[in-house]
Amino acid sequence: MSDVARIGLLGKGTVGGAFAEQLAERAFQVEAISGRKPEISGVLTRSQGDFDEILESSEVIVELIGGTDPARDYVVRALESGRHVVTANKQLIAQHGDELFPKAREHGVQLRFEAAVAGVVPVIRVIQESLAATRITRVSGIVNGTTNFILSEMAATGAEYADVLRRAQELGYAEADPTDDVGGADAAAKMAILARLAFDTPVSLSDVTYEGITEISPDDIAYAKELGLSLKLLGVAERRGDGISVRVFPCFLYGGHPLAPIEGPFNAVTVEAPAITEITMSGPGAGGIQTATAVLNDVVSVLAGEAPVDQPAERLEIVKDVSSSFYLHLEVADRPGVLASVADVLGRNGISVLSVVQRGLGDEARLVMVLHECPERDFYAALDEIRELEFLRAAPRAIRVIEEEFV
Amino acid sequence: MSDVARIGLLGKGTVGGAFAEQLAERAFQVEAISGRKPEISGVLTRSQGDFDEILESSEVIVELIGGTDPARDYVVRALESGRHVVTANKQLIAQHGDELFPKAREHGVQLRFEAAVAGVVPVIRVIQESLAATRITRVSGIVNGTTNFILSEMAATGAEYADVLRRAQELGYAEADPTDDVGGADAAAKMAILARLAFDTPVSLSDVTYEGITEISPDDIAYAKELGLSLKLLGVAERRGDGISVRVFPCFLYGGHPLAPIEGPFNAVTVEAPAITEITMSGPGAGGIQTATAVLNDVVSVLAGEAPVDQPAERLEIVKDVSSSFYLHLEVADRPGVLASVADVLGRNGISVLSVVQRGLGDEARLVMVLHECPERDFYAALDEIRELEFLRAAPRAIRVIEEEFV
Repeated sequence: MSDVARIGLLGKGTVGGAFAEQLAERAFQVEAISGRKPEISGVLTRSQGDFDEILESSEVIVELIGGTDPARDYVVRALESGRHVVTANKQLIAQHGDELFPKAREHGVQLRFEAAVAGVVPVIRVIQESLAATRITRVSGIVNGTTNFILSEMAATGAEYADVLRRAQELGYAEADPTDDVGGADAAAKMAILARLAFDTPVSLSDVTYEGITEISPDDIAYAKELGLSLKLLGVAERRGDGISVRVFPCFLYGGHPLAPIEGPFNAVTVEAPAITEITMSGPGAGGIQTATAVLNDVVSVLAGEAPVDQPAERLEIVKDVSSSFYLHLEVADRPGVLASVADVLGRNGISVLSVVQRGLGDEARLVMVLHECPERDFYAALDEIRELEFLRAAPRAIRVIEEEFV
Repeated sequence: MSDVARIGLLGKGTVGGAFAEQLAERAFQVEAISGRKPEISGVLTRSQGDFDEILESSEVIVELIGGTDPARDYVVRALESGRHVVTANKQLIAQHGDELFPKAREHGVQLRFEAAVAGVVPVIRVIQESLAATRITRVSGIVNGTTNFILSEMAATGAEYADVLRRAQELGYAEADPTDDVGGADAAAKMAILARLAFDTPVSLSDVTYEGITEISPDDIAYAKELGLSLKLLGVAERRGDGISVRVFPCFLYGGHPLAPIEGPFNAVTVEAPAITEITMSGPGAGGIQTATAVLNDVVSVLAGEAPVDQPAERLEIVKDVSSSFYLHLEVADRPGVLASVADVLGRNGISVLSVVQRGLGDEARLVMVLHECPERDFYAALDEIRELEFLRAAPRAIRVIEEEFV
């Protein structure tokens, strides 16, 4: 008879319930791989179970409570007691990674969290294991399914942001309070985790610069379509000189970009390095069953005794002053000299224009430009000047554009 | 001072040379991960080195000779001597997996071969490790970069197969003798490997039904474009009842299919299961540096002491009688009753028509149909009847169509 592997389960909501079900269904397969029969030793919910008892009787703790309090306390105590931990909790890892990773190393246990980023898409394992010895230069990702669903719907239907958000809420793709998703904070937490692993350096949520999609208008998407561009909320973590930069922002992608075809509530991540060119992974970013599958697979890896997370090698500087290419949308009075004035402001700030479209609308005109890459501080200086131009009829709108650099 | 990990290198061509270079460059990182300093203990080429001496002084053998003779003999002897083996050799694994996997288990050593399928795209690790406990239902892949380059070029330029092949040879995307690539044998070997791992069952090259792309005409691609379809050489391994089927064939994909956007010499693999919906991974399928990176990462995994390949669980039946949807292209005399005769043949064989386009060309007409899914034996019976119709002006052309089943 084979040994029993005792698993303590914290939280039994959608993901926790699906995890318990899958563990029961796949127990035979888990035993075939790990040589040990998995068994749930205890379940902690708000109304049931005692953490200390569960900890005592488990060798692996599966944390599916979410949030950082009391999840952080439980996970710290589990690691300190020499228990392996598997979690789907992105905020926990993004905000408390600096505390948790050293604890896991110190106590010789594993801390796995594949489900925290891009659901069942195995980006964590690929970065940590397949690319362990590869010097990664950039990680780009669509890591929030809610916003990708909203942007896809806006592009397909031409509807306003607020209407599509309501539809997403009805379909269960957006929460009642969507702030974390649409404001970019959720994606920022995930990019902090990916940056930490890709560059072997401590990265916290506070190191990530982020913007959301709440200011996007159907107009912007329509213009972009004409230019062969699609709008995504993109996370980008990349080496910049001796430092790194980690950002989340809405931006236009050219058709050939590997993330351009990703539609609806899907997630995708592209990893770049000279030694690999690029690898892209995509799949459903959420869903109780899919997330539970990622958790179960982490548990199997723990039981099979695979290698623990390796050690951050050095602390890299976080660079926030980066260069970007921008799309600039201006509603202006339709009269001579307007284009010249705007071009003058851009020119004085060292910014050159890649393409421009001007359209009359009665007394007004719409000026849509795509600019060449320039330091963002130069662009924002120019934008401040443009805001003061007396012929402007509405606030200017600016969205980054990712130029095609892929093979 | 840390321990030394001694690695014997068989073969020093493009990949072998790139591997030795990367190992030297990344030695510090490999040591940080595995705690051991990697060192090449010996190199075997046609003109240099002695296998027995290298075997004696190594704990890991990296086989980059290619082909099955003498590679198979070397790998068997390495496994029998308790050495871990890392190889990029798809033919070796596809043809001799039934011998090699049990040997590795028996001697408690690892046999890793990420580079054998889709180059640096980590499909092997994801199937073996991330999805170890997941019941995979289907694996679809574009696993040959040469044919994907040729089909992409034909679609982009409208050029003939032979002209594009010549261009691919000039660019180094096709070999002087391209038979294995364009005939489908290379993709078949890779699908045999993926099927074995996905379904935990022995699969050999001889179990795979395959066709190549040599009969594809620019006409077919042009018609497909009009219908929003793109042509790919696809490998499909899937569960069929209690058995499995493993096939390679050119086919049309609808725009929403996750493999439809894969262009040029890239590879991509989609894995499906109810518990994950689907995961797609893509990247460069070949290239000396990329392949060497995959080999190096396998070596790192071996040195880090990760889990060995798990054991095939059962022998599943190979099902060859499957159902497909077909595109059918007929050059016929332009006269009344032709469409009725063709429709009659299809109807009597139980095949219904999804769409049909007929175009006059002087005395002749071109009839292009897309048929609903039907058992392939019924389709081929109908095709035999159609071949005998006296108004046919050229041999009929048939290409499978993959209907959109993805979310």
